[in-house]
Amino acid sequence: MKHYAKPLSRLIGELSKLPGIGGKSAQRLAFHILAMEDKDADALAEAITDAKKKMKYCSVCGNLTDEDPCSICSDPSRRRDVICVVESPRDVAAMERIKEFNGIYHVLHGAISPMDGIGPEEINLRQLIIRLQKSDVREIILATNPNIEGEATAMYIARLVKPSGIKVSRIAHGIPVGGDLEYADEVTLLKAMEGRREL
Amino acid sequence: MKHYAKPLSRLIGELSKLPGIGGKSAQRLAFHILAMEDKDADALAEAITDAKKKMKYCSVCGNLTDEDPCSICSDPSRRRDVICVVESPRDVAAMERIKEFNGIYHVLHGAISPMDGIGPEEINLRQLIIRLQKSDVREIILATNPNIEGEATAMYIARLVKPSGIKVSRIAHGIPVGGDLEYADEVTLLKAMEGRREL
Repeated sequence: MKHYAKPLSRLIGELSKLPGIGGKSAQRLAFHILAMEDKDADALAEAITDAKKKMKYCSVCGNLTDEDPCSICSDPSRRRDVICVVESPRDVAAMERIKEFNGIYHVLHGAISPMDGIGPEEINLRQLIIRLQKSDVREIILATNPNIEGEATAMYIARLVKPSGIKVSRIAHGIPVGGDLEYADEVTLLKAMEGRREL
Repeated sequence: MKHYAKPLSRLIGELSKLPGIGGKSAQRLAFHILAMEDKDADALAEAITDAKKKMKYCSVCGNLTDEDPCSICSDPSRRRDVICVVESPRDVAAMERIKEFNGIYHVLHGAISPMDGIGPEEINLRQLIIRLQKSDVREIILATNPNIEGEATAMYIARLVKPSGIKVSRIAHGIPVGGDLEYADEVTLLKAMEGRREL
């Protein structure tokens, strides 16, 4: 980046640290930022520091929030007897988008992955068990990702929670809506067959 | 974005204004920023405001710089009798990368494009003419982009400058190195034939 003046090459450097932003994209973004109105560039910089300062994790469910407890945990209209367990705050947002689930969440902040040295202690699991002991939860829905780590995490939690008599369910695997049977991988197709329902 | 707390949705909003960053990418970036170390996020925000504050256009050549005149214009080792005319500061960086050109630059900040209402007055052209009158330039190399606007701009400048006796040249068009003759478009192939050189 020696062909650019220092403030510009520094900006390119910082931008290229972001995921999915390579050197070329970082350059394009940097030039765009320099061409932006002063107030727009300030707004971007401020949004970064502001979000970083104000966003924290909900002490109840672990979701990202600017108030504690988060707006979902403190919403009186939501059922408190169903907890949906997800891996990340992004998954909470995805769930909320379908506008179907009216319970509360628990964010694990990861999944069990022995290969990466992430055991049950490294994710937000102990807090879930404490929540289950303290409240009258009737069902937990395991909505971890349908990959090896997510499945292992779901299995682990299911084995841990089931003895307490709480209903434990797992979101369905199968062919995505609009998907093509022909192109579905075998495991997905197998899961779709296993999970078939009578019409 | 109503599923996210305000500081987060504001950050997502600001990020999605950047070119090539859609809603999904903006979300991914925002979550990444929130997961970053405080000092790294601060460094990013600061790089934005800092670059925005310090970078300006060189009063001589119009290149982006943090000092005026820019490091190229003030470099005593560079020839002052050859000016390479480019459309944008990015093109200066591209030229500098090949480490071949040892003259100075002139950045037009655009190209003539009557369709978009951009005439010769709207680009940094008057300043070029003033530079040519004041100094002993022997050659100007027109390195505007090889598209309609860039060609039109090059033609316009050539017609303007040639009567003064200054040599005017245009960078070569042709098959890119590593390119495939078969896949070259006709105009490029025509230019490559026209520009053939005796070996």
